[in-house]
Amino acid sequence: MNTLGTLFRLTTFGESHGPALGSIIDGCPAGVPLTTEQIQVALDRRRPGQSSITTARAEPDQVEILSGVFEGKTLGTPIAAIVRNTNQRSGDYDKLKSEDRPGHADAVWRERFKHRDHRGGGRTSGRETLCRVIGGTIAEAYLAQGFPQLNTVAWVSQVGDLVSAVPEPGLTRAQVDAHPTRCPDPVAREEMSRRILAAKEDGDSLGGCIDIRVEGLPVGLGEPIFGKMKALLAHAMGSVGAVTGVVWGPPDLLSRIAQPGKVFHSRKDTYGGIQGGLSNGEPVALRVFFKPPATLAEHAKGGRHDPCIMPRAVPVLESMVSLVLADLILQLNARPHSA
Amino acid sequence: MNTLGTLFRLTTFGESHGPALGSIIDGCPAGVPLTTEQIQVALDRRRPGQSSITTARAEPDQVEILSGVFEGKTLGTPIAAIVRNTNQRSGDYDKLKSEDRPGHADAVWRERFKHRDHRGGGRTSGRETLCRVIGGTIAEAYLAQGFPQLNTVAWVSQVGDLVSAVPEPGLTRAQVDAHPTRCPDPVAREEMSRRILAAKEDGDSLGGCIDIRVEGLPVGLGEPIFGKMKALLAHAMGSVGAVTGVVWGPPDLLSRIAQPGKVFHSRKDTYGGIQGGLSNGEPVALRVFFKPPATLAEHAKGGRHDPCIMPRAVPVLESMVSLVLADLILQLNARPHSA
Amino acid sequence: MNTLGTLFRLTTFGESHGPALGSIIDGCPAGVPLTTEQIQVALDRRRPGQSSITTARAEPDQVEILSGVFEGKTLGTPIAAIVRNTNQRSGDYDKLKSEDRPGHADAVWRERFKHRDHRGGGRTSGRETLCRVIGGTIAEAYLAQGFPQLNTVAWVSQVGDLVSAVPEPGLTRAQVDAHPTRCPDPVAREEMSRRILAAKEDGDSLGGCIDIRVEGLPVGLGEPIFGKMKALLAHAMGSVGAVTGVVWGPPDLLSRIAQPGKVFHSRKDTYGGIQGGLSNGEPVALRVFFKPPATLAEHAKGGRHDPCIMPRAVPVLESMVSLVLADLILQLNARPHSA
Amino acid sequence: MNTLGTLFRLTTFGESHGPALGSIIDGCPAGVPLTTEQIQVALDRRRPGQSSITTARAEPDQVEILSGVFEGKTLGTPIAAIVRNTNQRSGDYDKLKSEDRPGHADAVWRERFKHRDHRGGGRTSGRETLCRVIGGTIAEAYLAQGFPQLNTVAWVSQVGDLVSAVPEPGLTRAQVDAHPTRCPDPVAREEMSRRILAAKEDGDSLGGCIDIRVEGLPVGLGEPIFGKMKALLAHAMGSVGAVTGVVWGPPDLLSRIAQPGKVFHSRKDTYGGIQGGLSNGEPVALRVFFKPPATLAEHAKGGRHDPCIMPRAVPVLESMVSLVLADLILQLNARPHSA
Repeated sequence: MNTLGTLFRLTTFGESHGPALGSIIDGCPAGVPLTTEQIQVALDRRRPGQSSITTARAEPDQVEILSGVFEGKTLGTPIAAIVRNTNQRSGDYDKLKSEDRPGHADAVWRERFKHRDHRGGGRTSGRETLCRVIGGTIAEAYLAQGFPQLNTVAWVSQVGDLVSAVPEPGLTRAQVDAHPTRCPDPVAREEMSRRILAAKEDGDSLGGCIDIRVEGLPVGLGEPIFGKMKALLAHAMGSVGAVTGVVWGPPDLLSRIAQPGKVFHSRKDTYGGIQGGLSNGEPVALRVFFKPPATLAEHAKGGRHDPCIMPRAVPVLESMVSLVLADLILQLNARPHSA
Repeated sequence: MNTLGTLFRLTTFGESHGPALGSIIDGCPAGVPLTTEQIQVALDRRRPGQSSITTARAEPDQVEILSGVFEGKTLGTPIAAIVRNTNQRSGDYDKLKSEDRPGHADAVWRERFKHRDHRGGGRTSGRETLCRVIGGTIAEAYLAQGFPQLNTVAWVSQVGDLVSAVPEPGLTRAQVDAHPTRCPDPVAREEMSRRILAAKEDGDSLGGCIDIRVEGLPVGLGEPIFGKMKALLAHAMGSVGAVTGVVWGPPDLLSRIAQPGKVFHSRKDTYGGIQGGLSNGEPVALRVFFKPPATLAEHAKGGRHDPCIMPRAVPVLESMVSLVLADLILQLNARPHSA
Repeated sequence: MNTLGTLFRLTTFGESHGPALGSIIDGCPAGVPLTTEQIQVALDRRRPGQSSITTARAEPDQVEILSGVFEGKTLGTPIAAIVRNTNQRSGDYDKLKSEDRPGHADAVWRERFKHRDHRGGGRTSGRETLCRVIGGTIAEAYLAQGFPQLNTVAWVSQVGDLVSAVPEPGLTRAQVDAHPTRCPDPVAREEMSRRILAAKEDGDSLGGCIDIRVEGLPVGLGEPIFGKMKALLAHAMGSVGAVTGVVWGPPDLLSRIAQPGKVFHSRKDTYGGIQGGLSNGEPVALRVFFKPPATLAEHAKGGRHDPCIMPRAVPVLESMVSLVLADLILQLNARPHSA
Repeated sequence: MNTLGTLFRLTTFGESHGPALGSIIDGCPAGVPLTTEQIQVALDRRRPGQSSITTARAEPDQVEILSGVFEGKTLGTPIAAIVRNTNQRSGDYDKLKSEDRPGHADAVWRERFKHRDHRGGGRTSGRETLCRVIGGTIAEAYLAQGFPQLNTVAWVSQVGDLVSAVPEPGLTRAQVDAHPTRCPDPVAREEMSRRILAAKEDGDSLGGCIDIRVEGLPVGLGEPIFGKMKALLAHAMGSVGAVTGVVWGPPDLLSRIAQPGKVFHSRKDTYGGIQGGLSNGEPVALRVFFKPPATLAEHAKGGRHDPCIMPRAVPVLESMVSLVLADLILQLNARPHSA
């Protein structure tokens, strides 16, 4: 099941070391301004090698649009975009041919599919998430037309047991991107950097949290029962490899989560922007939990893997949110208020 | 979107105070033993009025199977089952006709649909969850045939800020049901009872957590990327009204969650039963977060609503898990190992 | 797969001699006027026993709405409606318990599902089509709001090898219903009656054609490629039991079918209302082919089965068209012209 | 809606004069032998310029597999394959920029999407069908493993009003391909050739029929009600651009169709391989109707368009059948006989 969505549908394909990865967006309306550069900028935010705290692999990740866009606007037809893999069969990985990597899904995957693509994880690789960013960027191009006030921003809110302060409303992606940790707390992020570099040295890895805030939502978004906004967001977050959980609620209450002896939502008069499965116009906040990435110590030391994937996962989660919102807006269009 | 699942599909219908609620299960294989009594027993576990800590409403919730079962076995055709509402238009609710209930989704629902069904919440009522239990019971009847070792058990693990001890492996539903709190910890549950009764007195309400443990899973269950077991479970949990989050992982690590300064999954060598989106044969553990139910104080005092819905939500969450598993098993059948 | 549609979705359930049959419509917008009487009137058009040329079985087919309608309007929630079977286990059918009925799908169904519901055909019975009429009536209630000029009319155009004249534009359902054959040609229908009665006498049965004309369609209806209007109509028609084919085109060209040495669509300047998979605002015409119903001669003689099912199939096919149109209109709403 | 299928799913993308067209197959089991050459051979059967009776455009249509295949076998991951367009912006088409082509869907498409891709038809071009052939070839690779006796063969059975003789059982694709008309009747095909060449000379075009025969089907294929084999085949055929109808039945009865005063299926004891929506193990026969292609006379004369597209449509229809069968077989696997 490599497709997500009902009306704004993302299909992803591609193995991490095959010829290419790519995405199809089916259902994007016609007339939405969209360029290769927009997608490239978004992919560059996800790209490794951006700083000393991420992996040193130089993957250019050049995107090419194959269909669905003409003279700078969407056609209403499926939008296909691909990224070629430049080092399809790395010698680094060949030695893995006969062994399962501890902590990786190799064994269970081989049991299921009676083969193992030894080229670096195949579809279970984090590299697949670039396809989500392609899709999310198209979703955001669509959303920007009808909902210019919509603002979806994610940031790293916890690394290991180090929790950052909750940022003020109106946080921008540029503010988040200003630091390689993608944590907007000026104090916590310096300590986060130190811990990530130490983990890199030790061949260790770190989990933590990403927080997401969605501001400027229209009222009434979401389809009752199994299409509730919170159900679809939970699905979307749970589809990302290293994610181990998600909670949602009003922004101020999320700050209490990691504190001892506190329950979420102890205030019954606040709802976190989602009521009865529908958006109520208030901001929606999400906290997404990540486990430490599993990897071979020698690889981690060699700089081939991120000791902490959360900084790079920030644009991936923003993309997943935008895909869900674009799908729900099309569904709301289908059954407008006047019925 | 009132349908869940790809091959084992649940569709639910019915307003809380309309003529009836019901479920259709489409995709259940033929030949599965199934009786009205099985479903009735499951519904009785969800029914209010079971003890002093739940609402006193006497709802008989008598189920009737309309199709799909013949001479005690499923036919392979859609299974329809309904529960009639006995008090369709309660005078208690008529006074609500012109006012939105604070804390309820009335306002956002009216904005979306340009009407409000004033009869007690309509589809946003918790009463809709009986439809999930019907579906889950059929899923469990199917699962019992091919996977007799499969054991899905949920229990109340936290009420307010009171956290229970983690139970031993092999916990049974009978052990959970032995106490009205549905908490198996003999110490914590007494205190939970006291707090729930106090909240009832005060017209207050309590949130908390339900933990779920799934043992005896086959290896390789789950569809890569958007059909990952953890994504589908997150979706299913997020579709339940009062749920505000879900985390998953190995049973022993879940015990650390509400503790100060702890991250989930700090041990990189354990995976909680799900790897690369597929089950690996180990137990899967989930923790599901609930907000305190919103309700009118006068209603809560009158005993018409549960001050703490978690004890009654236990069979609902078990049902959601079973529905996801039945769907994934059919998908695994479709593409068996030998390809 | 007992569900049809993407946004306006019909799910049907029920065996011909089980407790009840029924339909769920999920996705109908809120605020659409709908009453039990509307559905009852539509079901009565499909009902057997209306004249000497149909089966004499007296099936009351009383419909009951269980959900989704309140104070005469749809709520936007799933609409469930059921029809109870009054003679669930007819003695007439018990003798069939151990034998497959020649011409029926009993053998192939038993091979697939390892059982046979001997109670008169189960889901393969034509009785299942009453569920389509329930759904189609709701679709028409929705369409009547936004598209009052939309007019979908079907009629019996051929019985055996007897072909009727093509009616003038603007034909109404009342005109079609004025004669038990549901053929508007005043000459042909008398001969059709004679042939059907003769077949009934002989325990024989007759195939033929139903023509459908859809007038007043908006422009641009249909989703490119696999959601083309003609593809969805073909699917919907092909899902009806005795249907063995469907052709579509401009109304005047359909009249040439079955004539010797003629091809369809020899005029390249007319398109029959569907171009590039989208409606172009002109009328759409369909011709649907039926095989003679297979049945036991003794049953046919006993008046228990229709020697020619086409008169009763007229409202079923109209319903299928309306379901497709309602679904496509919601999809068009989702991606309106202004993109 | 550019996706077809439930478990074996084809998604197509690409405009006729954009950078590339392509297909994603999601759901093909792992371990199926598949090479680029297999797909190339199939595409070459669809390619124009094969003989004097088809268009002279030299489109190389080189396929490239981007994902899902490794060391000659499918991985169980999505299979993506693309074909680059070599002449993306033909000067021949630039002059069409400001005018709608008569007989084409340009006007209705522009009304719907508020733009027109003037580059030769975009998605409404017959060129999109190469994506179906890619998908169909993968479906056939899968089917060849489990059902080596399965034989799906299509041929041109009628051109204009010229009807060919019905071929003997066991007809092969090689026999069909032996003549550029793809008609196996040695007499009729010579006259067909003459008529097609005459139409080409005159800037005229010709419709007609393709017949399809499926032999070696397993018993019980098809999902009841809306997933009936005949419903899915009708949908698949109706999704092909120039198709205006489809009928199905036993092979010998199909031969009567174009004869005067004959109805289909006048013999009640034969069923054409599909009963109750399920395959019964007998051959299935389909007749698919085509309208004459609409085109500009000057283009037709210049040899840029086929005066008769049916010879090239033969592999397209075979592909559509194979896609439906692969999907139904996976669904049958999901709910095997033993239930």
